[in-house]
Amino acid sequence: MADSGSLQVLVEGLRRLPGVGAKSASRMAFHLLQHDRAGAQALARALTQAVDHVRHCALCHTFTEDEICSTCADPRRDASKLCVVETPADQSAVERTAAFKGRYFVLMGRLSPLDGIGPRDIGMHELIERACDGVVQEVILATNFTAEGEATAHAIASALKSRGLAVTRLARGVPAGSELEYVDLSTIAHALVDRR
Amino acid sequence: MADSGSLQVLVEGLRRLPGVGAKSASRMAFHLLQHDRAGAQALARALTQAVDHVRHCALCHTFTEDEICSTCADPRRDASKLCVVETPADQSAVERTAAFKGRYFVLMGRLSPLDGIGPRDIGMHELIERACDGVVQEVILATNFTAEGEATAHAIASALKSRGLAVTRLARGVPAGSELEYVDLSTIAHALVDRR
Ligand SMILES: [Zn+2]
Ligand SMILES: [Zn+2]
Repeated sequence: MADSGSLQVLVEGLRRLPGVGAKSASRMAFHLLQHDRAGAQALARALTQAVDHVRHCALCHTFTEDEICSTCADPRRDASKLCVVETPADQSAVERTAAFKGRYFVLMGRLSPLDGIGPRDIGMHELIERACDGVVQEVILATNFTAEGEATAHAIASALKSRGLAVTRLARGVPAGSELEYVDLSTIAHALVDRR
Repeated sequence: MADSGSLQVLVEGLRRLPGVGAKSASRMAFHLLQHDRAGAQALARALTQAVDHVRHCALCHTFTEDEICSTCADPRRDASKLCVVETPADQSAVERTAAFKGRYFVLMGRLSPLDGIGPRDIGMHELIERACDGVVQEVILATNFTAEGEATAHAIASALKSRGLAVTRLARGVPAGSELEYVDLSTIAHALVDRR
């Protein structure tokens, strides 16, 4: 598009975003340069800030700007219950139900052998260490009810049960095949109460 | 999502991109921070570079990093023909046909009274000045065949014809390679009217 190497580089940069093809990237670049240069500058600053400041919580692996995230640092949370979710968005979905007052472990992904994502990538070792700290009494598996989420739950359950931990799974109130992020809150809340 | 102001600011920055809602912005931010921090840094640099270096060609208004774009500066192009397009992407489409060897004027938009986009925003004044330079003999209107594109072509045609310029419009017709049976009726009707 047009007569500019910088523009071409910008289009290529935008194409690295998930779900953005060549046409959308061109449209985004055109929009930013023609109508929202302040937005382009704000986005550049936000990207740099986030890369510089966002890291993983030492206890639960979610994104945070501190050593320990606010949920892990909150002494009012029940440390005997550990809820395992795939992503921060899934954790937010569980939090919004207000039906869980324990702590979390965020896998930041799911097992996916076809994509080369194995136990190391989802922090399996750290999860086992965390779950076996002597304080955690129950691990609630809240991975998605997709094929990969179920396989991930199964692998974690095997590893933890063999170490004598109580492991539960969100009840099948959540429709099969769906992702937590898109499920209505009362369904998630019921699934928490009915966990088995 | 999660425990970070920087992350929230990044999600808001991504939402300023056209076609990106709250969910996509969260997914993009997660992807960049979890799997492609180099991509995030590259995008930040590309945005800054583009904002700093990309400007509008003084003659045709398209994006360029120079005072005059390479198409306008090319002495082999026929200066007597001026093709008017809405965007650099449309200009690229016409260029790829290799059927036009004249010059361009890029409106960088289209008239859209409902969105508050008027003649000033599409450089109507500059277009008239350019078309009336004494060298241009024919102005070819290649705005899109949408309601707004047609209205834009109509407004430009009125302004230029009243100044005694030859103004033509891309022919409406049946797309090459298509079967009449599957072509919508208004297209066939237009092709009949524009038969040659
Ligand atoms: Zn944490
Ligand atoms: Zn130019």
